[in-house]
Amino acid sequence: MELWFGEKNTETCEFKIKIKKQIYSEKTPFQEIAFFDSYDFGRFFTLDGYMMVNEKDEFIYHDMIVHVPMAVNPEAKRILVIGGGDGGTVRELTRYNHIEHIDFVEIDEKVVELCKEFLPQTSHKLDDPRVEHHYVDGIEFVKWKKNEYDIILVDSTDPIGPGEGLFTNEFYSDCYDALNGNGILINQHESPYFPKDAHEMKRAHEKITKVFPVAKVYQYHMPTYASGHWLFGFASKGLDPVKDHQRNKWESFGLDTRYYNSDLHVGCFALPTYVVKDLESVRGKYMEAHHE
Amino acid sequence: MELWFGEKNTETCEFKIKIKKQIYSEKTPFQEIAFFDSYDFGRFFTLDGYMMVNEKDEFIYHDMIVHVPMAVNPEAKRILVIGGGDGGTVRELTRYNHIEHIDFVEIDEKVVELCKEFLPQTSHKLDDPRVEHHYVDGIEFVKWKKNEYDIILVDSTDPIGPGEGLFTNEFYSDCYDALNGNGILINQHESPYFPKDAHEMKRAHEKITKVFPVAKVYQYHMPTYASGHWLFGFASKGLDPVKDHQRNKWESFGLDTRYYNSDLHVGCFALPTYVVKDLESVRGKYMEAHHE
Repeated sequence: MELWFGEKNTETCEFKIKIKKQIYSEKTPFQEIAFFDSYDFGRFFTLDGYMMVNEKDEFIYHDMIVHVPMAVNPEAKRILVIGGGDGGTVRELTRYNHIEHIDFVEIDEKVVELCKEFLPQTSHKLDDPRVEHHYVDGIEFVKWKKNEYDIILVDSTDPIGPGEGLFTNEFYSDCYDALNGNGILINQHESPYFPKDAHEMKRAHEKITKVFPVAKVYQYHMPTYASGHWLFGFASKGLDPVKDHQRNKWESFGLDTRYYNSDLHVGCFALPTYVVKDLESVRGKYMEAHHE
Repeated sequence: MELWFGEKNTETCEFKIKIKKQIYSEKTPFQEIAFFDSYDFGRFFTLDGYMMVNEKDEFIYHDMIVHVPMAVNPEAKRILVIGGGDGGTVRELTRYNHIEHIDFVEIDEKVVELCKEFLPQTSHKLDDPRVEHHYVDGIEFVKWKKNEYDIILVDSTDPIGPGEGLFTNEFYSDCYDALNGNGILINQHESPYFPKDAHEMKRAHEKITKVFPVAKVYQYHMPTYASGHWLFGFASKGLDPVKDHQRNKWESFGLDTRYYNSDLHVGCFALPTYVVKDLESVRGKYMEAHHE
């Protein structure tokens, strides 16, 4: 028997992966989750049919969501992670000894439970004593937090299904209020290449630029996401990801990273012209009055 | 009827594109060439079953092979292009009014003829009066050239089939001799992600570093090549792609580019750590004696 997993990048373009076997699948109240063993990517899991995390290249995504903000605010001690039930983002955060507290907010407890069982590579630090688990909606959780976090990491799916509310004006505004003066928000920012992804990239950027005075976008090579060209948003109340990059301080931590490094930190903010133009075309006006 | 084009990234991983129709196919003495119309990528053509150029994203590849060296040696006047029968590389070069002569060496005249007929988007500058066509083997052509070119662009397929000889010590050494003192060699440098591509990336780098005192590698996002993470090699007799980057001079040309820009020029040389390590693991010793 030949078993292939297929993910449609568009209706007329598909990425297919030959599977050794399906490990598990379950429909939770929020989404359908499935685990597979593959030849090229090791074990991976999907949510609603989309590849989320695989053993071969999860280090790319997790390096880029965590170490970029940590090299801009290397003193960060209180972190909020929304989503990321696989645990890879938390794993990278726990490598910083000086981080004191991580609020880990995942709407779907089942994802965490199953990743603990089937994907130890990413989940094995979820029981670090500094990590407090909250199985609630991140949108609700962040509403009640004021001036509390150094960094918020939105490790979300695409803006469909349970991830949809994480791409709204109100959510971004609540994140703003939950961050302290040096606060940084990183969010999954879609991709510039296929039209549907580029549309969501622009929608997210438009909204974030209305809320945050600093709103930049950085790129990384993620081969198992559609097109391989993916983005994170970097938004802050003032810190600039390149001008305020604390290269020496970050390097003094001595972390061994397979994707991220200090040169790449600067390089990843240099976007192709067509991406720059797409983003500029939707930049909203930052509404300072909103926060007074 | 549903018609899908499939390209295997590995034996167990495939990228599939739904086709409107197949336009043409022919087996030349060198390779099999085919043209298709697709929904997502416009018209594209394949050589031996591998996607070479499509209307949607060819600008990425052609920006990166041409404008990076032109911004390091913006005075370049004599250029050698090996391969690139689609004409996209020549098209970008002809945008520089001060370029005097382009030797265009393509082993397979049929590729040029068919691209002129079916792919005007890339081929429409192949009859620029500064372009001299040579339908011969680039390996032979370059042997007889000494100290003649400012830039050599190796716009090749992977190192299988007719492209194989373009990834040898002897060829790189002949390119060295064919370049003048400010000379730059750019070559298709494969990809770091899938093992077969990464193997070829390392082999090429090992050889080039034995011949050229400066041998760097830069990356770009090319969604329709396996993994989307692709590389070019930048080799020279002395010019450094970042330290000698002539940002202002290049910008004074006023070229409108959809992918390349001056910030990206610097950024694209900042490679992920795992790529840096893979490249460093094979760096040969530059043999200066060879050139005395």
